Amino acid sequence: MAEQRIKAGVYGASGYAGQDVVEILSKHPCAELIFATSSTYAGQEVPFTSLSYIPPEQAPLDQVQVVFLALPHGVSAQVAKQALDLGVRVVDLSADFRLDTPELYREWYGHAHPYPELLPVPYGLPEINRDHLRDVKLIAAPGCYPTTTILGLYPLLKAGWLIPGRPVIVDAKSGVSGAGRDPKPNLHFVEVYGNFSPYSVGRSHRHVPEIEQEIRKIDPKVGTLIFTPHLLPLDRGLMASLYVELADGHNSGEVQALYGQTYGDEALVKVLPAGQLATLKHVVRNNTCAISITPATERFVLITSVTDNLRKGAAGQAVQDFNLMFGLPETMGLM
Amino acid sequence: MAEQRIKAGVYGASGYAGQDVVEILSKHPCAELIFATSSTYAGQEVPFTSLSYIPPEQAPLDQVQVVFLALPHGVSAQVAKQALDLGVRVVDLSADFRLDTPELYREWYGHAHPYPELLPVPYGLPEINRDHLRDVKLIAAPGCYPTTTILGLYPLLKAGWLIPGRPVIVDAKSGVSGAGRDPKPNLHFVEVYGNFSPYSVGRSHRHVPEIEQEIRKIDPKVGTLIFTPHLLPLDRGLMASLYVELADGHNSGEVQALYGQTYGDEALVKVLPAGQLATLKHVVRNNTCAISITPATERFVLITSVTDNLRKGAAGQAVQDFNLMFGLPETMGLM
Amino acid sequence: MAEQRIKAGVYGASGYAGQDVVEILSKHPCAELIFATSSTYAGQEVPFTSLSYIPPEQAPLDQVQVVFLALPHGVSAQVAKQALDLGVRVVDLSADFRLDTPELYREWYGHAHPYPELLPVPYGLPEINRDHLRDVKLIAAPGCYPTTTILGLYPLLKAGWLIPGRPVIVDAKSGVSGAGRDPKPNLHFVEVYGNFSPYSVGRSHRHVPEIEQEIRKIDPKVGTLIFTPHLLPLDRGLMASLYVELADGHNSGEVQALYGQTYGDEALVKVLPAGQLATLKHVVRNNTCAISITPATERFVLITSVTDNLRKGAAGQAVQDFNLMFGLPETMGLM
Amino acid sequence: MAEQRIKAGVYGASGYAGQDVVEILSKHPCAELIFATSSTYAGQEVPFTSLSYIPPEQAPLDQVQVVFLALPHGVSAQVAKQALDLGVRVVDLSADFRLDTPELYREWYGHAHPYPELLPVPYGLPEINRDHLRDVKLIAAPGCYPTTTILGLYPLLKAGWLIPGRPVIVDAKSGVSGAGRDPKPNLHFVEVYGNFSPYSVGRSHRHVPEIEQEIRKIDPKVGTLIFTPHLLPLDRGLMASLYVELADGHNSGEVQALYGQTYGDEALVKVLPAGQLATLKHVVRNNTCAISITPATERFVLITSVTDNLRKGAAGQAVQDFNLMFGLPETMGLM
Repeated sequence: MAEQRIKAGVYGASGYAGQDVVEILSKHPCAELIFATSSTYAGQEVPFTSLSYIPPEQAPLDQVQVVFLALPHGVSAQVAKQALDLGVRVVDLSADFRLDTPELYREWYGHAHPYPELLPVPYGLPEINRDHLRDVKLIAAPGCYPTTTILGLYPLLKAGWLIPGRPVIVDAKSGVSGAGRDPKPNLHFVEVYGNFSPYSVGRSHRHVPEIEQEIRKIDPKVGTLIFTPHLLPLDRGLMASLYVELADGHNSGEVQALYGQTYGDEALVKVLPAGQLATLKHVVRNNTCAISITPATERFVLITSVTDNLRKGAAGQAVQDFNLMFGLPETMGLM
Repeated sequence: MAEQRIKAGVYGASGYAGQDVVEILSKHPCAELIFATSSTYAGQEVPFTSLSYIPPEQAPLDQVQVVFLALPHGVSAQVAKQALDLGVRVVDLSADFRLDTPELYREWYGHAHPYPELLPVPYGLPEINRDHLRDVKLIAAPGCYPTTTILGLYPLLKAGWLIPGRPVIVDAKSGVSGAGRDPKPNLHFVEVYGNFSPYSVGRSHRHVPEIEQEIRKIDPKVGTLIFTPHLLPLDRGLMASLYVELADGHNSGEVQALYGQTYGDEALVKVLPAGQLATLKHVVRNNTCAISITPATERFVLITSVTDNLRKGAAGQAVQDFNLMFGLPETMGLM
Repeated sequence: MAEQRIKAGVYGASGYAGQDVVEILSKHPCAELIFATSSTYAGQEVPFTSLSYIPPEQAPLDQVQVVFLALPHGVSAQVAKQALDLGVRVVDLSADFRLDTPELYREWYGHAHPYPELLPVPYGLPEINRDHLRDVKLIAAPGCYPTTTILGLYPLLKAGWLIPGRPVIVDAKSGVSGAGRDPKPNLHFVEVYGNFSPYSVGRSHRHVPEIEQEIRKIDPKVGTLIFTPHLLPLDRGLMASLYVELADGHNSGEVQALYGQTYGDEALVKVLPAGQLATLKHVVRNNTCAISITPATERFVLITSVTDNLRKGAAGQAVQDFNLMFGLPETMGLM
Repeated sequence: MAEQRIKAGVYGASGYAGQDVVEILSKHPCAELIFATSSTYAGQEVPFTSLSYIPPEQAPLDQVQVVFLALPHGVSAQVAKQALDLGVRVVDLSADFRLDTPELYREWYGHAHPYPELLPVPYGLPEINRDHLRDVKLIAAPGCYPTTTILGLYPLLKAGWLIPGRPVIVDAKSGVSGAGRDPKPNLHFVEVYGNFSPYSVGRSHRHVPEIEQEIRKIDPKVGTLIFTPHLLPLDRGLMASLYVELADGHNSGEVQALYGQTYGDEALVKVLPAGQLATLKHVVRNNTCAISITPATERFVLITSVTDNLRKGAAGQAVQDFNLMFGLPETMGLM
């Protein structure tokens, strides 16, 4: 039985997203974790496994069928190329393959894309893009803010109910693990404790172009994103509060039903009943996105969309992508 | 010297706002705390003083010149009336005198206002209403959400720069002390810890009519409030993220200067330099409001306004009102 | 297959320990949850299941083979009796059956034991008492402090290495969920946040007689317990720091090996390698106890023992008891 | 008036202890802050002042009468020497002058003491050593663990009530600010959040020799220290739980009175009434030490001693030392 499992490696496995990929894979009935890399913690035990972290350059790429890359952008593309050249499939959790064009990548990441010939890459948001993820070699798993925001907007975008050109306001709040495990002054416990702070506001966060690219594919007339991320004093969980305005002919009271229909068959997106409000406790440590709808005025709607930034916002979704990539049941190991 | 101090009593002094009123008064050079009431903690020591809490019905109203009421709405109006009849001045921190008409009060609080003849009462937001607070007998100190929101909007409202009739979006986040000290299931440590949750969303929070009443006095053409309060997993601090749209002829790049001019002389409102962002650490445990301005698009602006909900949002502001009421320097005891 | 599952009910299922019993059972391959009671939340959804909470008096006792009682002491004994009379087995998480004699129960709980004829009841600490738990009708699952303390002391007690009569010092720290879900003033978020506080110190905590009773069974010459519980500002996790003195002929350097031998075959007790220190992160959300040993002087040893107070300290251990009771593999559903 | 103020400089002013020195001095009626150094934050505003941080090498030492050194050990001694040579007095918050002999310093800090001729230096614990702090040129301000531990033990040590040679058990818990502001992996918010962990246990922490040196001066027969520090998931506050055994002829019931007598005249040490327990909330953000006494058995006593590690455990005590050094009222600026 174990021989039939899909052999997987995880790069960047000691980071927060990497740790969750390992944890999920360790309980996945059709995956077998072969290696987990970490430059910083090489030699130490890998939680949930009997492995030790190895340096990335020692990873036995030829012994696996797939790798998960939880690496910094720039680094990730290099390893992806190396893996693909060996016939190893790749689920990339970095930003390296999320933007469709090398021009956009250069604009936001400050250097040329190393492998523009690989672009565009299927965007791994299964609820929207499932049909393009089956049996592919490379998937770009979305970031946590984009996942939470796009899933929150998707039914309205798809139905074309938003006023063309009106800005979409996204007031977002993320737990600290979203900022990574590297020690930085602003992530010191004492700095975060008792504080709540915005950062990269307006249109400066690197997730803005990723979100805009994807929502425009669904509704080309959607307006500009106004995106305000904040740092919450907790470890995991992400909320996107979405303020949108409906076009003529639509009423905020109809939105609840639209969401129920759109997501009725989705196992990992829960539309809460009218009157209930999405909170982080709905999603922390599970692999779902929860959404609540609040009509604010006749034409304005508040959509509250929440995920665990390390699960549906990163590792859980990466495994969901992996399941699609290998033809497994989509939610295997995730329920 | 001590004889010349203004003799004060505090009702509801064991609640969170009441505790801060006591702490501030204990260090105020021109105030002398005569009594502090608490039904629940009667007999126990009052921190920062040599007093013990007394039951409210034992309070020696005839020995003070002023009382601060940090009581539940409904109860507060009764004590206020009693004090006023004895010639004792009142700074009321409850909601009982904030709404200008008995009709509005009944609509939002579910019972008739007990003393409609006292309405309207001067609204104790000094930066906006200073001239109506000097030497008066009764002041309605504003709530924490209204203070933070109105101060954040005031320069734009006063200048008339907002598009008439467009909704004003307020995504607000408050520390738990804003919900009071009474034990409730949703305030249990375990329920709040690691969570972040919206409540009373849309237009259902009781601070909505208070805010709308006041902002319409400044700009009668201002649109509807869309108000989303959230509970932050920390003890004190409040942020209002305000999304507004400018009318023709105005540009988001001009807003920074407008705020600088409007608040240039204010000791307790700090407009942060362009590029800096307001966080809770700017205001927790002090008596100021801090505001940052972020142009989001040419016409949309994000205003981030923060206070300590127990200080500039409650007790600090009440003492600021007291200073004005008695002709003392406005910031005495608050810097 | 489902027909062969053991049908179980959970009383007090909305409390923190009860919630974890439900969660573990929902994933247990040989258990089927038939009902979950809650007086406070009757009618609401039971997380991890498709059930709704029912009032305890409506529980269909005749449809289950076993009940888990996560009820207040006093109440629990009543339901246990009722179940046993119907032939339903009982794993009791309350204190009602932990003390061996009615006299001790009356001394610590202030009222007569309602069913003294049921005492003594097998004490459900499998690592120590496994042989008395197989196929029994009623098990008294230990409290969180006793589990963590007794497991931390067991190898030394069993080996008889402690100086007879010397006090055993237990400086213990617990997350807030150990205090239950009922809202109380001292459990309000604002009271706990940023604080750390001892309570029921000296020898006044109700877990003292339970611990002393059990450790004396292992080593009758063991000294008095000096027990200091503290409240940690976090949701779950419990640490017992045990300071003990070795008798002549024993050296603190030998203790590590003793613990390794004693617990070498235990799946749910992990003795950390010398030099590593037990922390809450070792155990939170899993069903193990982790122990580290630090020789402090030649004769004094610090044992650091940690559990998740809701798992190995309550629900996880109750399911371990259940597994033994029904002849299932002891760690089923717990790894 | 301002001319008569004592001109002071603070080195290491952006660290957590340094920040609190600056805050206290900014409100001190007889001190004037002339400069505040920071290598990392040079150029940025110094909170509570109108100054900007300057690099340490630009500090105008010739313009001040005293410097506070909140620097790493090793660095601190260099600046102290430089200041003393210029006739500037020094309150040193580092460990450089706390150990009385160069031999002990080398043993614990791994390098030779640079200025052994300056040793021993008066140890700045005023409640014990007040008479040796008046009008001196250099004071070694104690660490946070030593302050809290020694004040907790002092009355028993001074009275000679402890059994000679018996170990003193100190189970200590500190907020994260005690570990400094430098970003380190183990101080990352996510690592600390929800965790509680011992570190440097047994007799390995660098505060052990400092504590033992000082308690032996008070009671030369006192036993070995068994010292277990833990990291609490909060920003500030320190508790030392002290377990001690009384010699023949003394009873744990007499200890409360002994402490009341010993500390009866101390403004900054509060002995709580019998039955009350010291918690962090008693001391956070003030300059006191609070102590509670619990008789555990006839001969064993638990002393719970708490401070704010940045106040009475660092900055507050340094200013108390400064007051003594310059003949000012000892608690000036600290109440």
